[in-house]
Amino acid sequence: SNWRVWTESDVRKTFNKRKPNAHKGTYGTGLLVAGTDEMPGSALLAALAAMRSGIGKLTVATTPFASAIIAAKVPECTFIHNGLEQIADGKIPRKIKAAAVGPGLTDQVKINKALKQLFEEKIPLILDAGALTKREYPMKTEPIIVTPHPGEFAKMTGKMTADIQKNRLDEASAYAMGNEVIVVLKGRNTVIAFPDGSLHINVTGNAGLAKGGTGDTLTGILLAFISSANDIKSAIANAVYLHGASADYWSETRAETSLLASDVSENLAFVLKAFE
Amino acid sequence: SNWRVWTESDVRKTFNKRKPNAHKGTYGTGLLVAGTDEMPGSALLAALAAMRSGIGKLTVATTPFASAIIAAKVPECTFIHNGLEQIADGKIPRKIKAAAVGPGLTDQVKINKALKQLFEEKIPLILDAGALTKREYPMKTEPIIVTPHPGEFAKMTGKMTADIQKNRLDEASAYAMGNEVIVVLKGRNTVIAFPDGSLHINVTGNAGLAKGGTGDTLTGILLAFISSANDIKSAIANAVYLHGASADYWSETRAETSLLASDVSENLAFVLKAFE
Amino acid sequence: SNWRVWTESDVRKTFNKRKPNAHKGTYGTGLLVAGTDEMPGSALLAALAAMRSGIGKLTVATTPFASAIIAAKVPECTFIHNGLEQIADGKIPRKIKAAAVGPGLTDQVKINKALKQLFEEKIPLILDAGALTKREYPMKTEPIIVTPHPGEFAKMTGKMTADIQKNRLDEASAYAMGNEVIVVLKGRNTVIAFPDGSLHINVTGNAGLAKGGTGDTLTGILLAFISSANDIKSAIANAVYLHGASADYWSETRAETSLLASDVSENLAFVLKAFE
Amino acid sequence: SNWRVWTESDVRKTFNKRKPNAHKGTYGTGLLVAGTDEMPGSALLAALAAMRSGIGKLTVATTPFASAIIAAKVPECTFIHNGLEQIADGKIPRKIKAAAVGPGLTDQVKINKALKQLFEEKIPLILDAGALTKREYPMKTEPIIVTPHPGEFAKMTGKMTADIQKNRLDEASAYAMGNEVIVVLKGRNTVIAFPDGSLHINVTGNAGLAKGGTGDTLTGILLAFISSANDIKSAIANAVYLHGASADYWSETRAETSLLASDVSENLAFVLKAFE
Ligand SMILES: Nc1ncnc2c1ncn2[C@@H]1O[C@H](COP(=O)(O)O)[C@@H](O)[C@H]1O
Ligand SMILES: Nc1ncnc2c1ncn2[C@@H]1O[C@H](COP(=O)(O)O)[C@@H](O)[C@H]1O
Ligand SMILES: Nc1ncnc2c1ncn2[C@@H]1O[C@H](COP(=O)(O)O)[C@@H](O)[C@H]1O
Ligand SMILES: Nc1ncnc2c1ncn2[C@@H]1O[C@H](COP(=O)(O)O)[C@@H](O)[C@H]1O
Ligand SMILES: [Mg+2]
Ligand SMILES: [Mg+2]
Ligand SMILES: [Mg+2]
Ligand SMILES: [Mg+2]
Repeated sequence: SNWRVWTESDVRKTFNKRKPNAHKGTYGTGLLVAGTDEMPGSALLAALAAMRSGIGKLTVATTPFASAIIAAKVPECTFIHNGLEQIADGKIPRKIKAAAVGPGLTDQVKINKALKQLFEEKIPLILDAGALTKREYPMKTEPIIVTPHPGEFAKMTGKMTADIQKNRLDEASAYAMGNEVIVVLKGRNTVIAFPDGSLHINVTGNAGLAKGGTGDTLTGILLAFISSANDIKSAIANAVYLHGASADYWSETRAETSLLASDVSENLAFVLKAFE
Repeated sequence: SNWRVWTESDVRKTFNKRKPNAHKGTYGTGLLVAGTDEMPGSALLAALAAMRSGIGKLTVATTPFASAIIAAKVPECTFIHNGLEQIADGKIPRKIKAAAVGPGLTDQVKINKALKQLFEEKIPLILDAGALTKREYPMKTEPIIVTPHPGEFAKMTGKMTADIQKNRLDEASAYAMGNEVIVVLKGRNTVIAFPDGSLHINVTGNAGLAKGGTGDTLTGILLAFISSANDIKSAIANAVYLHGASADYWSETRAETSLLASDVSENLAFVLKAFE
Repeated sequence: SNWRVWTESDVRKTFNKRKPNAHKGTYGTGLLVAGTDEMPGSALLAALAAMRSGIGKLTVATTPFASAIIAAKVPECTFIHNGLEQIADGKIPRKIKAAAVGPGLTDQVKINKALKQLFEEKIPLILDAGALTKREYPMKTEPIIVTPHPGEFAKMTGKMTADIQKNRLDEASAYAMGNEVIVVLKGRNTVIAFPDGSLHINVTGNAGLAKGGTGDTLTGILLAFISSANDIKSAIANAVYLHGASADYWSETRAETSLLASDVSENLAFVLKAFE
Repeated sequence: SNWRVWTESDVRKTFNKRKPNAHKGTYGTGLLVAGTDEMPGSALLAALAAMRSGIGKLTVATTPFASAIIAAKVPECTFIHNGLEQIADGKIPRKIKAAAVGPGLTDQVKINKALKQLFEEKIPLILDAGALTKREYPMKTEPIIVTPHPGEFAKMTGKMTADIQKNRLDEASAYAMGNEVIVVLKGRNTVIAFPDGSLHINVTGNAGLAKGGTGDTLTGILLAFISSANDIKSAIANAVYLHGASADYWSETRAETSLLASDVSENLAFVLKAFE
């Protein structure tokens, strides 16, 4: 099929350098709908990643319990308390450039209500974790991005994880083309499939990422890059590339075994330096 | 008009070096009225900045929710719970040397009540964020400093943001002279306008600052410097200069994209070293 | 008796290197039952240690108060609120590969109920701190590991601490063989005794570890290593070795006096690097 | 009078090196009674300092609000909720080796009740901040240490701060001899006065310490050193020396202006290394 590896040189050509005259509006406001009392950290990890990836402003729709946890570590973001419920009720903040839904969420009824509201907005949407199920997507000009790991993709497609892993490129591409969404099929050599049939393969990252929370970090990077993207394709490929590159940067001097999802965000500062 | 660039050499001449015989009273107690449950981090960022900028003592008037978040990261400060309400009720702590009002605040009625109380105090006042609106200022010997970004200055003046940006020097100066307040008009090349018509232009900082929270950090630095200022003009110009210089120090080795408002405060320790 | 020193070369031969194709499931999900409102930090320390030791996923069964504290520092884990009670009621999460019970717990009735439930599961169990008392162990294929310091071992055996310290090898071995459990008898030169009569002695670590919380860190490392162990003996010996080696790494450049239990986890990243 | 400067060589001779065979009991359990909802950070700072100064175990008697804040940063300690009230009611934990009372406390009735209970215990007592007032001390074999800054010493003695500063040695010594307590009169060149008339003068530290919270850090260091002291005099002099030396270590590479009380504790790890 129509695939190619996304390389460092591709990132170099397409990475959005910071504009000297920019103000925070230049980089857009992102909305993150994530986190429950049982999984507050997932929202923290995605929020930290979005901030370290240069988002202009970030609003986190989550529980009060999770808000307190997030704010201590990511004071740069603001909150919508009882956020999933608020979004489900249609109370969507203005001037949002993109939204990500799913990390740490479990209540399918509320998630679906929230998505219904967000599908009405003229913004790109990232669906991850709790927002990934067998689902019909609305017709929409702005892109919808789904970011399953193989197990989640199995649920979305009704197929076996093992079968998906045998045909990652074809499976991702078929879903992307059939549903008119962008698929980020995660795991070693993450596959990015676009509705037009084109495919990118990622070669960065290592097994230090095989650990809870690293997917939440990717969701945050995606949210930031998409919030100020000129070109959605390179924004997504760069997010996946740099997420892995940050893990590789860590393991130059430290053990993969000890890498945490938050380290991926913290090391972005050094990895991105080479592309500015 | 009557402007000049504030340079490193100006900072070197005017920066308040620490006095060997000092005690914490030497550097004054600042009052920060900031933070809500939806925006607790703004108060955290301003508090951290004030402490890293050498304030003697800091009292934060905020919500209990925000207090818990701030105390974990800035244990050096103390709290007035339900602080905005307490200040609005006239319960102002004694021996305050300066106050900053606004980051993370939204309730205009309470903000105005609190300001009315603070205007009675013989101390310099910094108005930022939620405290910035079209407003009449009282006659007062001690300086009032307003720190709008262009969008906030548009609201304060009733003009269009684009028009303000075309005439930053003139617009800031006219407002400062007309209202007898000091204007810090933020954004690339921040303009500082004094009621006597003089103007300073800042040349430090970079687009890494184009991100939520960096303004709160500036407010904290201003509060610290003003709390122990001999000369208000250089105190303000130095705060703006060093805020930007800290961002520039970061980006010598790390990506602007990843700079966070709290990093600006943390890097001050290295930047200020050169001026002590 | 049948003992030998566990050496760096033993670690080198047996340490589980990260597999390039791994996903988080490869490294298993651990369950940590730990922490009360009076001792929330013990659960935090064990959770941090488990994550830094490469566990795939971690679920912490604890109080809501402790959850908030843990999540801010270890956002990578998830929670079961009122976790000790939930486990005691038999609500055990699925797909757990190993469990550790005890740090920061005091309620013996609930601990015993929780253990009764966990003894039914086909998983290795680590018993530490509050879970260590005079106790009969069930017949079980999967290993039970007890990790007493000499004072706790005295309670478990009804002997005097001083007598235990005089015969550490024999005492640990007799208990292990008599009760068919693995004994990690802590303190300088930790002794690991297996039911088959074999014994390992550890030679890493220093008196910086003589401080509250370091035992909780060991429990977390054990939980991680055991969750993905091929060979339980080397998993345990490596955990003990690396816990001490991390303390020794710290004291190459910093004072033993200042070493904290959380530092042991943070320095694992550097220590483990040599074994990957 | 009978004074001398406490030097680096004195510290070298008297500093308690870590004993290879130590366990946490070797270094004693300390009790810290400190912190309110308005000043939770003071307890955090003292707790952090005690842990970084090698205390074996630390129990913090404080409010639930403050406990949550402390535990996130100092997970190595444990808590007595509503601790001031509990101690005032005579519920004193067993096996305490020393106690410190005062940072962040304001309620004089409760403080006095708590002190009455603690005066009955056969342990050294440190009185700081809220516990410093005009007071009669009980006859007691174990030392009582008071740690006022000049303003607090003025309150304790009924004299003017300026007069105290003119005769720091004599004033401290007269109080120590008259009241049979050890006086640590803080500020540049802290004076330590013993009931036997001997006096030590400290020469470390700098004006970076002239900032809220640094006194709480000293209290924590004192608590740790006194909990395992052979010789109370050198324990106190070393605590004061090393507190200042840590501030001096910071300012070799970073600005005094930016030094925070928690940095003093964090840098102890490097400063103490030279004495182990
Ligand atoms: N063995 C591996 N090599 C490279 N990347 C990995 C590996 N395992 C997991 N990842 C990445 O880590 C993240 C895991 O996401 P999640 O499963 O949602 O937590 C994804 O971005 C994966 O692509
Ligand atoms: N492109 C830029 N170059 C330099 N400084 C900037 C830039 N964008 C924002 N800032 C500064 O960042 C802060 C933003 O404040 P606020 O808009 O209130 O968050 C102000 O101090 C601005 O001057
Ligand atoms: N003096 C010492 N030398 C080496 N390891 C020690 C020493 N003291 C304590 N430890 C270790 O520190 C941990 C203390 O566990 P616990 O008593 O449960 O907090 C155990 O792993 C001990 O083996
Ligand atoms: N100018 C200074 N030089 C040296 N040490 C100082 C100076 N100012 C304050 N300190 C120390 O900082 C601490 C302040 O304590 P407190 O006033 O209780 O917060 C004491 O240990 C003082 O000795
Ligand atoms: Mg995921
Ligand atoms: Mg602002
Ligand atoms: Mg223990
Ligand atoms: Mg004090």
